[in-house]
Amino acid sequence: MSFSFKLITKDSDSNARRGKIKTQHGEIHTPIFMPVGTQATVKAMTPRELKEIGVEIILGNTYHLYLRPGHKLIEEAKGLHKFMNWEKPILTDSGGFQVFSLSDLREIKEEGVYFQSHIDGSKHFISPEKSVEIQNALGADIVMAFDECPPEPTNYDYVSNSLDRTIRWALRSKEAMENVDQSLFGIIQGGIFKDLREKSVKEMVQINFPGYAIGGLSVGEAKKDMLDTLEFTVPLMPEDKPRYLMGVGTPEDLIEGVLRGIDMFDCVMPTRIARHGSIYTSEGRITIRNATYKDDFDPPDKDCNCYVCQNYSRAYVRHLLKRKEILGVRLTTYHNLYFFINLMKKIRDSIEDNSFLTFRENFYKKYNKINAK
Amino acid sequence: MSFSFKLITKDSDSNARRGKIKTQHGEIHTPIFMPVGTQATVKAMTPRELKEIGVEIILGNTYHLYLRPGHKLIEEAKGLHKFMNWEKPILTDSGGFQVFSLSDLREIKEEGVYFQSHIDGSKHFISPEKSVEIQNALGADIVMAFDECPPEPTNYDYVSNSLDRTIRWALRSKEAMENVDQSLFGIIQGGIFKDLREKSVKEMVQINFPGYAIGGLSVGEAKKDMLDTLEFTVPLMPEDKPRYLMGVGTPEDLIEGVLRGIDMFDCVMPTRIARHGSIYTSEGRITIRNATYKDDFDPPDKDCNCYVCQNYSRAYVRHLLKRKEILGVRLTTYHNLYFFINLMKKIRDSIEDNSFLTFRENFYKKYNKINAK
Repeated sequence: MSFSFKLITKDSDSNARRGKIKTQHGEIHTPIFMPVGTQATVKAMTPRELKEIGVEIILGNTYHLYLRPGHKLIEEAKGLHKFMNWEKPILTDSGGFQVFSLSDLREIKEEGVYFQSHIDGSKHFISPEKSVEIQNALGADIVMAFDECPPEPTNYDYVSNSLDRTIRWALRSKEAMENVDQSLFGIIQGGIFKDLREKSVKEMVQINFPGYAIGGLSVGEAKKDMLDTLEFTVPLMPEDKPRYLMGVGTPEDLIEGVLRGIDMFDCVMPTRIARHGSIYTSEGRITIRNATYKDDFDPPDKDCNCYVCQNYSRAYVRHLLKRKEILGVRLTTYHNLYFFINLMKKIRDSIEDNSFLTFRENFYKKYNKINAK
Repeated sequence: MSFSFKLITKDSDSNARRGKIKTQHGEIHTPIFMPVGTQATVKAMTPRELKEIGVEIILGNTYHLYLRPGHKLIEEAKGLHKFMNWEKPILTDSGGFQVFSLSDLREIKEEGVYFQSHIDGSKHFISPEKSVEIQNALGADIVMAFDECPPEPTNYDYVSNSLDRTIRWALRSKEAMENVDQSLFGIIQGGIFKDLREKSVKEMVQINFPGYAIGGLSVGEAKKDMLDTLEFTVPLMPEDKPRYLMGVGTPEDLIEGVLRGIDMFDCVMPTRIARHGSIYTSEGRITIRNATYKDDFDPPDKDCNCYVCQNYSRAYVRHLLKRKEILGVRLTTYHNLYFFINLMKKIRDSIEDNSFLTFRENFYKKYNKINAK
């Protein structure tokens, strides 16, 4: 097992922390943001662009890759790293989230989930063992235990039963693990119910994983509920293991997550809104596709040092997006990922300087400028 | 006028020639292929990728840029080079070809062409003077005289009358030129009629341009007619000026054009077929999107040294194309442009070595392998 996590420093005024994860494919500096590469590509980006931006780890989606092109094909290609030409760390999810959110006619049983593909209606079955088998074939550095992620709003009884099953599935996932080069993280569920979250942490820690994720947040609950749940749950988690908040979020979510002790994040937001013509700037999120930017020859974000902001104007990017030119989406995607990666770098630096709260305050002061207009 | 053309060497066994064009934005080594950047972007590519491939000059489309985003906006952005972040040479066409092939309800008069936009039906007028005005605003290094390009098949009388008008328009284009940093090329028309081509060359040479294009080929005539017309027309053209064959063509067309004394080419083919899932390889053109390549882990072209062929498999590129991932089209476009640029480099080297005919023979021997199967 080549996986390790080292806590480097803790912020004295909050739960923010700076750490380092070592994997077979390289180091990850936490807190970290992981771009999502659903179908063996971070949409619109090459691996060398990701490296240029400073991306240290990306996420792959087990459900999508299992269906197409198939984990067997990727195994034949000598794994996901080789197949997609990404030599740095990869984390794959368990497929659970997509089985529950995308597939049709699913039936949850103790042994696993029966479902139909959202693409062609073909019938499939994924169990904890099957998820591990697929993830082994993909060959990611960090793999996730198969879980159920109940969407909000749900009732207490449903979440409670689901959680018990997820705990049993986590144990089966661990037992199914054979590939010693991969590290299996357990997922803490329990919705917004504190006693269930507490139970989940206890049981997962008892199974003993090299890292723990918090699942089931940012799935429809109020922002306050998400933050309350984090504030309650994170302190219960072991300090010497990385903490991963799944599927979150906006720049504000990242900052608030770090404040509460989270080390890892992933989200499709920066790449998805890029494809819809929106970008993040130091003064807030703007829709650069809008007519307002037609003859705006300033860079997309005046305070940004990325390739896009150093070489192109808002007017040009807007022109490309309006004309549906591929380069338009390439530039917005590149910039948005840089914005997220650079935000995390600044967060890490501020934790090292013990000035994270000041950084947070200054960020918000500037970031809300556009919305305040 | 910073424009110059120098003939470096001539092949002793054919009309192939090696030359060098100097422009305000840098040198161009001929014979050269110019990728097409219709809407201020070579589709799917960044300028730095074009530079990495070895592209020395690109083409911009006056008709498209005039309509959107508008030449005034590009002028405000300090010209097309700055707007699209391409600091090497640019050639813009006159808009004539698109006015005749794309626009609706056009009416050709002596003063110019009245037409409706193919996008929104808005009414426009382009004359030789207007074309020069637009091209001046765009700021390309090489600009083209406004002409009519009659599509095949047409009759002799139509082509003859059209040609006379094109000659008068060429004179007006030259008189309208004011920007001394731009070089205006004349366009030789005349369809597949030898006497008209001869007349066209004579009249254009009399007006005296720094370079001459051959227009009106590869517009529907038989391949043999195109080659015959080239064989007849090129030797009539001045030896000390660059010769540009517009809108051509396939790898074979480039080789046959060079053989007959052409120095410059442009074509949408490599970028367009890339978007439809086809690539050029040293053994011929293949549709990499096809199921045949599903589990083919060889590089797209085994004999290619480009970024794509060094890092990705046919199976991966096919997966991306099938999933409509932007990266798929990026990789096929990158490879196809590299294939064309590298083909021209090998052609240039072979002319320098006085081995162009051997190169041509060996190329065909290998290139037709797939079709021969």
